[in-house]
Amino acid sequence: MASTTTTFSLSLRTNQQTPFPKPSFFSNNNHLHFNSNNWAWTSVSTARKSRICVTSSQVLDSLAAKSEPALPTTVEVDLGNRSYPIYIGSGLLNQPDYLQRHVHGKRVLVVTNKTVAPLYLDKVVDALTRGNPNVSVESVILPDGEQYKDMDTLMKVFDKAIELRLDRRCTFVALGGGVIGDMCGCAAALFLRGVNFIQIPTTVMAQVDSSVGGKTGINHRLGKNLIGAFYQPQCVLIDTDTLNTLPDRELASGLAEVIKYGLIRDAEFFEWQEKNMHLLLARDPSAMAYAIKRSCENKAEVVSLDEKESGLRATLNLGHTFGHAIETGVGYGQWLHGEAVAAGTVMAVDMSYRLGWIDDSLVKRVGDILKQAKLPKAPPETVTVDMFKSVMAVDKKVADGLLRLILLKGPLGNCVFTGDYDRKALDDTLRAFCKS
Amino acid sequence: MASTTTTFSLSLRTNQQTPFPKPSFFSNNNHLHFNSNNWAWTSVSTARKSRICVTSSQVLDSLAAKSEPALPTTVEVDLGNRSYPIYIGSGLLNQPDYLQRHVHGKRVLVVTNKTVAPLYLDKVVDALTRGNPNVSVESVILPDGEQYKDMDTLMKVFDKAIELRLDRRCTFVALGGGVIGDMCGCAAALFLRGVNFIQIPTTVMAQVDSSVGGKTGINHRLGKNLIGAFYQPQCVLIDTDTLNTLPDRELASGLAEVIKYGLIRDAEFFEWQEKNMHLLLARDPSAMAYAIKRSCENKAEVVSLDEKESGLRATLNLGHTFGHAIETGVGYGQWLHGEAVAAGTVMAVDMSYRLGWIDDSLVKRVGDILKQAKLPKAPPETVTVDMFKSVMAVDKKVADGLLRLILLKGPLGNCVFTGDYDRKALDDTLRAFCKS
Repeated sequence: MASTTTTFSLSLRTNQQTPFPKPSFFSNNNHLHFNSNNWAWTSVSTARKSRICVTSSQVLDSLAAKSEPALPTTVEVDLGNRSYPIYIGSGLLNQPDYLQRHVHGKRVLVVTNKTVAPLYLDKVVDALTRGNPNVSVESVILPDGEQYKDMDTLMKVFDKAIELRLDRRCTFVALGGGVIGDMCGCAAALFLRGVNFIQIPTTVMAQVDSSVGGKTGINHRLGKNLIGAFYQPQCVLIDTDTLNTLPDRELASGLAEVIKYGLIRDAEFFEWQEKNMHLLLARDPSAMAYAIKRSCENKAEVVSLDEKESGLRATLNLGHTFGHAIETGVGYGQWLHGEAVAAGTVMAVDMSYRLGWIDDSLVKRVGDILKQAKLPKAPPETVTVDMFKSVMAVDKKVADGLLRLILLKGPLGNCVFTGDYDRKALDDTLRAFCKS
Repeated sequence: MASTTTTFSLSLRTNQQTPFPKPSFFSNNNHLHFNSNNWAWTSVSTARKSRICVTSSQVLDSLAAKSEPALPTTVEVDLGNRSYPIYIGSGLLNQPDYLQRHVHGKRVLVVTNKTVAPLYLDKVVDALTRGNPNVSVESVILPDGEQYKDMDTLMKVFDKAIELRLDRRCTFVALGGGVIGDMCGCAAALFLRGVNFIQIPTTVMAQVDSSVGGKTGINHRLGKNLIGAFYQPQCVLIDTDTLNTLPDRELASGLAEVIKYGLIRDAEFFEWQEKNMHLLLARDPSAMAYAIKRSCENKAEVVSLDEKESGLRATLNLGHTFGHAIETGVGYGQWLHGEAVAAGTVMAVDMSYRLGWIDDSLVKRVGDILKQAKLPKAPPETVTVDMFKSVMAVDKKVADGLLRLILLKGPLGNCVFTGDYDRKALDDTLRAFCKS
């Protein structure tokens, strides 16, 4: 089924018959091709990682059977001497040890926003200091919203850290959603040329995606995330109880990234979502915990294989190139990131279909699951073809002038990262989704 | 001669009898101690690196005997897969190959300033493009001076790069002195989460110190270099001809760092400087080339052993903690960096003497060589004890509230990086050098 440039598979298959096999990525059966225009695995991988081989029912059972205090589920991001754990569980902020073991030095700066601070800042300060009187905690509270993910706001973090005379042996803690995580991580990467930091994500978006993997950064008025660094945290602590206060719209936004993992590499997870989306929308704790865990496993696996996004990692950006154009085009903060990604995913799927790379049943399934998740399936009417083209031209996946996209190709769970596509399909997709 | 906390040596000894020995740092004879307060090597190292074992006369002979076009001297910065060469020579900008071999992608952004651009920008564009028509070069010209090493100016580089729609396969080139190198490197580290960059330093300061080793960053109004990243270039290209246009004051400023290498780790080099400072001030090409080469060798060796400044690398900051306080106190751009470092070195030496760690002959030699180099030996009268204390409190070498300093201890060529000193000596030094 393979040819050198166009056939591919990127699916992670689980196999119920042999639960916990040794990871075998890059075995002889898998051929990783990467050139300037096309990234693909050329054969269906049978490789699996042990952490992704438990079934959803196994996880649900273990979560249901938990005693107090519950032991968190731990997913490891494997990056050599920069490896770190993702702790996932209910009530983790009441168990100070998980947080305290990753604090370096005696001084902590919590970076949070005006929405999250009244809800969780005291709890986090308590978790950092309980039984640990030598640690002092300060905080900087930023305005809330993607429109503040800029250099001016980032400078407020530096101002605070410097005014407090924090030194290299301090720890920054990101308490909030994706914007806070990206900005706190960027500040940690740059303050005194790098200090330790911890992620405490409080939104679905941050818990399933942005807090994991070390991408930090801020927006430029001409494009999203154009300024930043790869900088890994000491740990990610996901207290699923923080989702209890999340607005519905934010919850749905995060589900766009959950759906993404299914589409690009985990067909079984997608099928689980098709059956359980109503439970996620109802915030069923077990279903939510499972979706977060499985998303983190997928993210951790990809990041471990390709930290700096030389190929594989780019596939996590399905729908994001279109989505970033929507966010930038309508103005940061108007659409939530996941809303824009959802519409962008529909556009990427539309384009994949126009190229003849997927069949119409998959197009329908994507539309159906986004509808279930109450996510938009088209960009706002104000975004024009020219706006898309202008913002997409500065996307980080442009290489030597060629825009590379993540597109679906083949059965559910398979995608390509490629610049080798018919330009007409892109133009047709843009025209189909824009009024002008 | 060793005790666990106070005795030390950090000298690199050359040995004429065994020219090109295998490097033997961290052999059993060398004990690297590092705790929160004190960093030291506890025995005199006999280790040497081959590249530092040629004598000055050997280098001068080889430079004098050069034919056209001269082959550059190459010093390697050894950092595993991030290793890179420093090319040193006359007329290197007329030999495009050295530059072109390190350009990634087809688009280059030269970051320079209003002083250097009229002198060398055309030459650098020519070196990048001669025989290489596929490469396009753009430039951004910043104002000149330490007072512009700030976030507002850095944003101009991002604005330009984004407006030009540069992608990850571009190369940034820093053409200028230390300010340009630090800012261009910082921009390269952060643009699209990291692009390639090349250093073309045009001042003595940048050629002997700041362009080598990957420290990038900008100033904050409250302190120098507080925001930045460790980010290594693809190469450093030092065309010594660029020094022909350097003002005398800038030349002297750079010599402060040359003197530093001798004081902290290379007694033989210091002795050579004592005999040859008049040649450096007269811009004798051979003497200057030797001083640059030997400085780069010292810098490369230290950086290779301790890239992220967990101990050894901090010793390169002799005089810098006092010096940064002077620069910040009088206002960025009023004193040149090397001028402040020179006064700061005198203060560090004074404090070392008050602690009884060096004898008065070394104090005199430091004063004499700085006088020869036409460098200041005291801070300006406007800087007060309180200003020193305020700025020093946010120095990057503060750890858990304790200010660690680089001080001389023992014979010429030996220093310590330590927080374990009598506070009274620091107070006495500050009072001795400040009117209020």
